[in-house]
Order: sequence, then structure tokens, then C-alpha cells
Amino acid sequence: MAENMKISLGLDFGTESVRALLVDLEGKELGNAVANYSHGQITETLPGTGEVLPADFAFQHPNDWIESSAEAVREAVSSSGINVADIIGIGVDFTSCTMLPALKDGTPLCMTDDLAGEKFAWPKLWKHHGAISQTDKINRIATERNEDWLSRYGGIIGLEWFFPKILETLEEAPHVYEKTEVWLEAGDWYVWQLVEAEAEALPRSTCQAGYKAMWNSQTGFPSPEFFEALHPDMKNVIKDKMPGRLVPPGESAGQLNSAMAEKFGIPSGIPVRASLIDAHSGVPGVGASEAGTFVMVMGTSSCHMLNSNSEESVPGVAGVVKDGILPGFYGYETGQAAVGDAFDWLRKLLSQDDYREMMEKAEKLSPGADGVLCMDWFNGCRTPLMDGSLKGGFIGLSLNHGNHHLYRSLMEASAFGVRWIVDILRDNGVPVDKFVATGGLPHHNPLVVQIYADVLGLPVYVHPSKQGPALGAAILGALAAGSEATGFSSVSDAVDKMAGERENVPERTSKVVNPDLEATREYEKIYKKYRQLADVLQKFDK
Amino acid sequence: MAENMKISLGLDFGTESVRALLVDLEGKELGNAVANYSHGQITETLPGTGEVLPADFAFQHPNDWIESSAEAVREAVSSSGINVADIIGIGVDFTSCTMLPALKDGTPLCMTDDLAGEKFAWPKLWKHHGAISQTDKINRIATERNEDWLSRYGGIIGLEWFFPKILETLEEAPHVYEKTEVWLEAGDWYVWQLVEAEAEALPRSTCQAGYKAMWNSQTGFPSPEFFEALHPDMKNVIKDKMPGRLVPPGESAGQLNSAMAEKFGIPSGIPVRASLIDAHSGVPGVGASEAGTFVMVMGTSSCHMLNSNSEESVPGVAGVVKDGILPGFYGYETGQAAVGDAFDWLRKLLSQDDYREMMEKAEKLSPGADGVLCMDWFNGCRTPLMDGSLKGGFIGLSLNHGNHHLYRSLMEASAFGVRWIVDILRDNGVPVDKFVATGGLPHHNPLVVQIYADVLGLPVYVHPSKQGPALGAAILGALAAGSEATGFSSVSDAVDKMAGERENVPERTSKVVNPDLEATREYEKIYKKYRQLADVLQKFDK
Repeated sequence: MAENMKISLGLDFGTESVRALLVDLEGKELGNAVANYSHGQITETLPGTGEVLPADFAFQHPNDWIESSAEAVREAVSSSGINVADIIGIGVDFTSCTMLPALKDGTPLCMTDDLAGEKFAWPKLWKHHGAISQTDKINRIATERNEDWLSRYGGIIGLEWFFPKILETLEEAPHVYEKTEVWLEAGDWYVWQLVEAEAEALPRSTCQAGYKAMWNSQTGFPSPEFFEALHPDMKNVIKDKMPGRLVPPGESAGQLNSAMAEKFGIPSGIPVRASLIDAHSGVPGVGASEAGTFVMVMGTSSCHMLNSNSEESVPGVAGVVKDGILPGFYGYETGQAAVGDAFDWLRKLLSQDDYREMMEKAEKLSPGADGVLCMDWFNGCRTPLMDGSLKGGFIGLSLNHGNHHLYRSLMEASAFGVRWIVDILRDNGVPVDKFVATGGLPHHNPLVVQIYADVLGLPVYVHPSKQGPALGAAILGALAAGSEATGFSSVSDAVDKMAGERENVPERTSKVVNPDLEATREYEKIYKKYRQLADVLQKFDK
Repeated sequence: MAENMKISLGLDFGTESVRALLVDLEGKELGNAVANYSHGQITETLPGTGEVLPADFAFQHPNDWIESSAEAVREAVSSSGINVADIIGIGVDFTSCTMLPALKDGTPLCMTDDLAGEKFAWPKLWKHHGAISQTDKINRIATERNEDWLSRYGGIIGLEWFFPKILETLEEAPHVYEKTEVWLEAGDWYVWQLVEAEAEALPRSTCQAGYKAMWNSQTGFPSPEFFEALHPDMKNVIKDKMPGRLVPPGESAGQLNSAMAEKFGIPSGIPVRASLIDAHSGVPGVGASEAGTFVMVMGTSSCHMLNSNSEESVPGVAGVVKDGILPGFYGYETGQAAVGDAFDWLRKLLSQDDYREMMEKAEKLSPGADGVLCMDWFNGCRTPLMDGSLKGGFIGLSLNHGNHHLYRSLMEASAFGVRWIVDILRDNGVPVDKFVATGGLPHHNPLVVQIYADVLGLPVYVHPSKQGPALGAAILGALAAGSEATGFSSVSDAVDKMAGERENVPERTSKVVNPDLEATREYEKIYKKYRQLADVLQKFDK
């Protein structure tokens, strides 16, 4: 172990587990551990009371974030054999918009005696879909009032965002809203617990605020008049119930406090960076610091990140935030609500223990899965329609089809979903030149990557890092330590040094999956049918 | 055993097996046996050569019909302990349009040395769907020529019918067409083998000819000019390749010959009735001899039979044939192409060994299967669209749905399919007053019967006979013996004596499944969505 080694810790909070990654300033992995949340996703019954939750509800337990991250950090440290004194910075990325109501002392409402049994006091996971009518209301009123900020979100805000989730609680459980002293993103809550700060100074990430809470560095959050139009009691939600300071990327959120340091088994005082959305963290994680590279973070759902040099109004884009992904660019976020989740749902629906048999047969099918066409809205449509109430389906089915036809058609639909997003970006003047895939899925499922390449008609670069977001978090964690400590001249310099492609380093050389151009021609026709089906189902479901 | 007992033998040829049923003239079951066809449905590879068959092909082996029926008769006789000298008549029902090319001596072309390896020489099973373009052609030319007979078939003839199957062979394998001396229904071929007759006198059923070959007692088959317009070589198909005489219901087709008598182990000389379509045979089989009773013969597919007092033009009805089901009525045939078949396909698709688990959960769901909507066109749509190329599907799917949602939505779609047919009949002046369900399915699956009753908003009478068509065949077999032998004053008298409802006889008392009127109201809304989906998919698939 070199004496003056400098190490960054990245913490990547996913839907089921948290990863702790230790890297040096050349991006070399030193330690790596994953710990599952003991409650996982809470979708069936409320812990403690056993109350059966509505079908579209999804919660998490705040304790899981603390305990699982401590477990992962301790394991990463012990397996790496590093000297913990060498850790110079901590970066965090988190699913979003996962959010919760808390007291000013940081206690989540669901961990107070009087509200533990009240479901609306629990943290809502990003995929919680209880706020359908509230999302409609927000969009209707924002459109009527011609709110300026609306155009930055493709003209429509999403079911999974911050304020729909708050309005849902206000309407469904006003006493919970009343008792809430602090509404905040789970990633912000977690960093708050790491650094310990008065509520008035709690560090809130501009990334989450920009993409999920309609915040903008010039104009701030929406106005009290807008919130009053939503609900009289919501007028002063920002002033009264959202204390804190907004921390832009590249600025430290504080230092690790002693309580958490003890839990982690590392020194206190280490600089901590404000949380980034997990998908956004994937962009530096794969070494992408240039405009026009479409980074597909493929997991349970997919988030697609793109840096660009100009701000364009793109219908259905989840958000355009200046400096939202990396400083100096306009960061575009788009997404697909069900990818790995949908594959897994289908596998279970078809009573398959694993994908092997279906995969083998699906590989042998031609583009179009013998006429089976899938619509992949099994968890709604994020980009471009931003409508969580939409539903998926399979058509073109006959008695001759087997489970592998459904499986292939789902992979194709997922690829068509990406194609649609890319079409909309390009049609609105946002260049897309290169595709990078990251996350667990592209490594486990080479067929889906081939189908993506075939449908897009361009190579897909599969980044070898299986922990793109965790590495991104570690890069930004290193930045929290300051340039004096790291020697990085800029964010791009840090991204390149820690994650840029290196020809002779296997873990930093992407696998290139080239399109089969004959398949691309076939898919051109089937994609038209997919769009036709999208039109039809959109009208149908209403 | 009474000395002067009189017994009728009914032979019911299904898709997978044949049933032999022995009953006395009061309808009492004396013997009953089923024998599977050793080749079953031939859908994968051609026997002998192993040639892989196209996906929409389905054949049968003529030997199976002879050997399996002999096995079933022998078993029914031996298990019953009857005196075979008491058998006074034989009735046959058969799937239709199952058809084949033969030589004038009765040899099927597929059993000749030079054509055994030629797939088009094989009997095409009713569900063979190879004649898609030929069906289009027939419909187009019949419409252009304004053929009179078209209106009796709802303005459109079906993919599964007699002449599309012939034209397919003529276009795809002209040498097979050329070598064919006799084109005929499998049921007619079988009866021909029973009675032995010169080709010129082979008895053809007016039921099959009327429903599947556009024949009519007033005008005969379509004209040579029509056939010439289809294909020059087809001009004289009736005169040159369809010898025989048309035998109306109630008339004997001949006497059992000694070769077959020996195979069956019963005396020769017994009167044999011309074959009825299996589904049509189900009408007398459940004791229905009145107008307005909609008899649903539910199995692999469903055929719905209805006697009425007037001939109306109903779009999409499979056929209206005077005296086609029972003398004195206009017989309406309608159908659904995949019912039990679709349930079974779905079960296999979902990797379930049986229905138990899905059924238990499906029963607990409310009407609408939590938003999952199915289109049951997994083998095309028979009535009302008569389009075998249509495909099925499931929409409204989300990550919260399980296999029981698909299963329930399929049962609901099947019920909506019936509702659509009934709506079309009533809208065109054909009364439907009562619903009777028969066949194996309603006995194995009480939930589907309840859903049918709920969707239709009227009781469904489940006839206890599990062998409705076989009993119908036996009733018509008895009629072949003549009124002197039976003492029956009319066909209705025979139907009532042998199969009419009897309060104190359990096997002749239907189980009445009443609708839940709250569910009926719910289904009213969901049915509208089903029809909307039908509109959409119809346009979509084109």
C-alpha cells in the first residue's frame, strides 16, 4: 500500500441494495461490496401493522439506508485492506425521486411513535405510483397558469416526482402533511445524516431539485401562488417545510460526523458531496464528459443521460438542467420506467426460474418475434409521454407462440422505446452521436444490447464498469476533497483520469456491439408498428 | 337385458379422439368409450418423410379414423355387455371442414405410394390455416361477381372451409389436384367406408355441404363460371371431382358393410346415417329442438348452434342452412376459433402443469381482471369477422399482474366473443332466448360458465351430458332405422324421447348457472372496451 495513496468512497443507493466502492485517483478499484436492504421494496404490507398496501404503492425503510450502507462500507474496507486514513472524500448517488417527510431533527416521520402505523408517513420509493390524480392536477394547473418552468420538463411533469408525492399526502393524509417539518429527497436525507447540520442548513442537491422538484438556479422553486392554486395549505410549502441550502455539483456538503464515521469504521471529518441522482452519476462513471453521448443506465428501470451544448425544448423529456449532470453542459434526462423490472416480471409471469431457456430460443428468432409486438409500458411511460398510468401489452399472439416470443418482443419493445426517445431529441435539435450502455443489465443480457444496436442502427458501447454510478459517485466524492488534495484541474479532468477509456486497461475499454444492418432495416418497419400501437394504446387507456 | 331392446350407436369424431356411445331409445347410456388417434393432430412434421410443416398447417391420418373408431366401438360394446344384434342404427358426427383428396375407390391420396410424401395429399384438419390468400381470393371474386349464395354466409366465407382448402392445393401442388378423383369431407369419406358405395353414389351430408361448401338445396354448389374465375383448372371441380349424392338429414346413407362390421365386432347391414358436423350434432344431443335456444358446444374451439324460424342475412355468420341442424328450422352456425385450445395454450405458455393455482386466484378477481383485457383471436376470428389471420393479445398489463390475471381475462374475452355473436344475431332479427352449454369445457371449468352467464346477463344451462354430439349422433342413428323400428313420430319426438330434459333423471337435468347482475353491469362497460380493442386490432393487423 503506497504511503500517500488517496482514496475516494462512492456510495450508490439502488432500489434493492447499496454498493460501496473504494477507488484511487486513477480510478482503480480497491474495494467493492453490496448490501441488500433488509426490507427491500415495501410493496405488499406496511411493516409493523401488516396493512395491505394499494397495488401502486412502494415504500422503503430509512433504517435500511443507514444500516446497509454501513455494512457495505465495512465490507469494502475490510476486503480491500486499505488504510482508512487514506479516504479523502465521499460521494453519494441515490434513486430519485425517493422522498420522505421528516422532523427538523432529521427523524423520519415513519420512525415517530404516533405515525409509524400511518402509511403516508413512510418514504415513497421513486416507483411509488399513488399520485396519479395529483400529477394530473399539477400538470393541468401549471398549463393553465402557463408556468415558465414547464417547458424545461417537456411540457409535462411526472407521476414519480417530488411535488406530486407531497400533494398526494396532503390530500390523502392531511395530518401527516401537517406534522411534516421537512420534506426532502432520500439522497438529501442520507447526506444530512452523514454530515449533521441544522435543518436550516441541510444540504439539498441541485441535481435532484432540478430534475424532480422543478427548481432552477435562476428562478428557484415554483411560486407560492402556484402551490396555493394546487391546494391552499400548500402555499408556503417551500418556506415552511423545505428548509436547507441548495448545493451545486463540485461543492462540499459538509464533513462526515462522528456517529456515522463510527458506524462505517472510518475517520470522521472526511468531506462529503451532495447526493446525485443514481443515473446521472453513471455519466462520469463511464468516463463520458462530452456532448452528444447518450448514456443508458440500464437496470430495474433505465435512465438515459445526455450532455448537450444548448437548451432546447423537447416534448416529454424528463428534465433539462443546466450543470445538472456535469458542470458546463445542459444535462438532459430521459427514461424508461420498466426495463430489468419488466424482464423479471415477465420471467416470473411465465414461471421460469431463470432466463436461460427463453434466451436460447429468443436468440434464434428473427427481428419481429414472429409477429408478436410488445408495448413496454408495464410501469407506465416515462419519456416521451410522462404518463405513469399507461399500461403495457402484447399483441399479434397466436397459438403457435411460446414464451420466448414474448421475451424477445419485450426486448425489442425496450429498444423501440430508446429509439423513440432518440428520435424526439434529434427532431428537436439535440444531437445524439454515440450510445454507451451501463448498469447490470447489458452485462447479463448480450442479446438485448444487440437488439438495441440493431434498432438504433449504431454501435452500442458497453462500458465494462458494472458499477458506473458508484464510480461516478466516487469521482464526485474525490472532487469534494478539493483540487489541492486531488490535483485535478477540472471536473472533465477528474472524469477522464478516473474513468476515461484506456486502450490497455480492460476495465476501461468498452465492448463495441455493432448493428446488423439487415436487422436494422427490418426493425425500421416494426418500429413504425410499435409507434402505431403506442398511439392506439394511449387513446385506448383513457 | 330386455329381449327386444333397441340400441343406437353414435360415433363422435373430435380433433384428438373418437367417442363411441351406445344408447337405448330412451336415451339411456349403455356403453361409452373413447380412443385417441395415434397420430393426433399432425402439425409439426409429415409422417414418413419428417418434413417440417409450416406453422399454420394441420393434418390428420385417415387410418386413425378407422382404427380408433373400431377400438372405441369394441370397447363400448364389451364394457356394456349388450347384445350387438340389438343395434338398429349408426349415426356419425365429425369435425368439419376436415377434408381430403381421394381416388374413386376410396383410397386417400396420402395412402398411395407416389403421393404419401407430398404434404398436400394429406387430409387437412378443420383448423388447417394454409389457405389465407385463397380465402381472400374467393371472397373477392364472389363479391365482385355478386354471388347469390354469399349472403347466406354473412357476406364472407371462411379460411377453414372446403373450397379454400381445395384451391390452396390446386395453387400450391397442382399435381395433387390433378391426381385427385374425389374431393370430400372426412365425415363423408368415413361414412363412405362404412357403407361401401360406388364413388358416383357416395353419400355426402347436406349439413357439411350446406355449411362448408356453399351448397344449397335449391341452387346446388356454386357455378362452374364462379370456379373458373377462381382458377381455370377448377371450372369443373363439381362435375369431375365431386361425385356422389347429397343425403338430407333423416335419410339413410346405406348399410354397414361386412369389412367394417368385422372390425367393429357388430353385425353388418345396420342402417348408417350421413355424417353431421360435430357441433351441429350437439343440438339434438342436449335435447334442444326449439327455435331460439343458443347451444354452445365448447371444446378446443366453440361452435354455437341456433335453430330459428326465419332466414335472415346476418353479417359474419358462418352459415344459415335450411334443415341444416334439424328438419323444419333454419340452422344458424356461428363459432369461436380458439376456446379450450387457447386456455391450454395459455396454460403451457405460463408453464403451469394444471389450471388449479391460476383458477383459484382468478376466481377471486373482480370482473375486468384488474384492468387486463384480452382479445381471444389466438386462432383468428370466426364469427363475426371470419378472418383466420387475425391475432390475439393482452393489454392493460402492469408489473402488478400475475398469470391468473391473464387467465381470467382470457375467459372474459371468450365470453365477450359470445356476447358479440348474440348481439349480431339479435340486431339482425334472429331471436336468442336461452343459452345451453355443452362439451367438455363447461364441466371442467365452472368459472368460465359463470363468467359467460354474467357477461350474457342470462342463465346458462349446462347440459349434464358430457357427450352431447355423440348422443346427437346416436339419435340420428336411430332415425336412420326408420319410424317403424323406433316408433318415433318425428325428429322432435326422437330428440325429446332420447335427450329431452327430465326432472327426475339427473343426467337429463341441466345445471342452471344464474348471472350475478352486479357483475353483468360491470361487464357491460368492459365489453365496450373489448369491442373497441377489436376495432383497433382489426385495423392494426392489416
